[in-house]
Amino acid sequence: MAARRHFGSIPGIAVGALFASRADVAAAGVHRPRIAGISGAAAEGADSIVLNGGYEDDEDRGDEVTYTGHGGNEPETGRQIAHQALHAGNRALAKNCLDGLPVRVVRGWREPSGYGPPTGFRYDGLYRVVRHWSEVGQSGFRIWRFRLERDDPSAPPWEFSGTSARESQSEYRPEHVVQRLVRNSAVIQHVKDLHQYRCQICGIRLETPGGPYAQGAHIRPLDRPHNGPDEPANVLCLCPNDHVLLETGALVIRDDLTVIERPSSRPLGQLRTVRGHNVSIGELAYHRRMFT
Amino acid sequence: MAARRHFGSIPGIAVGALFASRADVAAAGVHRPRIAGISGAAAEGADSIVLNGGYEDDEDRGDEVTYTGHGGNEPETGRQIAHQALHAGNRALAKNCLDGLPVRVVRGWREPSGYGPPTGFRYDGLYRVVRHWSEVGQSGFRIWRFRLERDDPSAPPWEFSGTSARESQSEYRPEHVVQRLVRNSAVIQHVKDLHQYRCQICGIRLETPGGPYAQGAHIRPLDRPHNGPDEPANVLCLCPNDHVLLETGALVIRDDLTVIERPSSRPLGQLRTVRGHNVSIGELAYHRRMFT
Repeated sequence: MAARRHFGSIPGIAVGALFASRADVAAAGVHRPRIAGISGAAAEGADSIVLNGGYEDDEDRGDEVTYTGHGGNEPETGRQIAHQALHAGNRALAKNCLDGLPVRVVRGWREPSGYGPPTGFRYDGLYRVVRHWSEVGQSGFRIWRFRLERDDPSAPPWEFSGTSARESQSEYRPEHVVQRLVRNSAVIQHVKDLHQYRCQICGIRLETPGGPYAQGAHIRPLDRPHNGPDEPANVLCLCPNDHVLLETGALVIRDDLTVIERPSSRPLGQLRTVRGHNVSIGELAYHRRMFT
Repeated sequence: MAARRHFGSIPGIAVGALFASRADVAAAGVHRPRIAGISGAAAEGADSIVLNGGYEDDEDRGDEVTYTGHGGNEPETGRQIAHQALHAGNRALAKNCLDGLPVRVVRGWREPSGYGPPTGFRYDGLYRVVRHWSEVGQSGFRIWRFRLERDDPSAPPWEFSGTSARESQSEYRPEHVVQRLVRNSAVIQHVKDLHQYRCQICGIRLETPGGPYAQGAHIRPLDRPHNGPDEPANVLCLCPNDHVLLETGALVIRDDLTVIERPSSRPLGQLRTVRGHNVSIGELAYHRRMFT
């Protein structure tokens, strides 16, 4: 049986770690395939990618990368000779985008951007896939594109190794403040999988070309001063609309799992449940106390 | 006519700026009220607050603050003697939370946490209101609470001034990666106001105890390589569910403003419009090219 795909950093492998060859990168567990640029599966997401100049349409600015999906290019030249589809590794990266899964990024010496290592391969940390779309590339064929943003607590290697001149940070725009930030975790992913992305309050399942979309909502918030547990019994699988309503106290849930609209106290129906996912009555009571 | 409330930093006032008195803080435009801890209005949001030991239930950890709303406390002692309501300044802070508006934070010398200045008042930068809820405080009365997180490009003053021992940063939890981040801007706020928070695709208006909730969606993304304009004609007012569907290409919009489900090509209806908000046909076409 294959080991479960590991998302996130590899214990013992620091950002900036250098490898002489793809075989060494694979042996360390940083990027397991020897040839493919994307390590992933459509149903699981992508745990790592390699940037090594394989695609003419890639755009690498260090912290921000526009990555081209795979398929349709000539391995010898990197030239695009056919359309790409939202399948296989491309679909895996779309799942990262939908579910908020991190992807490890490795750069190789062939990377033309100046952000790669002078020789061999280097682990550059975790990135988020913040957007995916398609477009007609330089050679006239449809390609899938993924905007990656670096999201790693360690400084990027090109800052401390001095291997490359770095462009100025993408500017901070104070007028563009965060309105809403939704986090993911292994526990949330598990609960979304159990419910197959169907909202436990309204029953909707949002379908997108890259796969279904849902959010995991902690009933008792994780952050201080609530310090709710990161356990399945404290997580609901919700559509984004019902997530907002739960988080703001526009909805509360009774011990008998009736969903109640506030302040009208109108019952909206029963919370949907599935075998294998018990919802904590204690945390539901904590949430009610936050708003009543 | 009163000047429009200004959200964000004050030009010329750096993080760490010191003031001898509340009158000086007010004269600089950093926090205009001379006595009140919250500068804001229910319909507009809160542009600034002062942390100065006024509430027994406040919890100040520097970058993270649990702030107590106003009302029901004895000014002389700070003791809570009645319930608080989600009105006035409290409702203003809830609007910050719903709309992603930043709030300037000023700390005074009375602040007992150790993060305040030794004398006078200090501007400590911009914070986000990430959550609001109520609870029964130390004195047995209901109080409103706001979790603030610092979101400012400048280092916090307690790091560079050495006025206080700083606790370790809140830990980075790699398993809790960002799943979805929704930004706000003055343009987005304007479009949401024009539509009174009603979704232009499905017509829903999400009602929460703190006010209505909607998101602004850029039709052509702002970020590279799209570089869409931050203008009302490139923004739609959407519920979170339809925002996800638009951003992932599960929906596209025709030049005649028919909303089309993908990949079925089923028409879902007409985009809702209001006087004073023209939607750019060119940007709708750009969005269609991203997904078809």
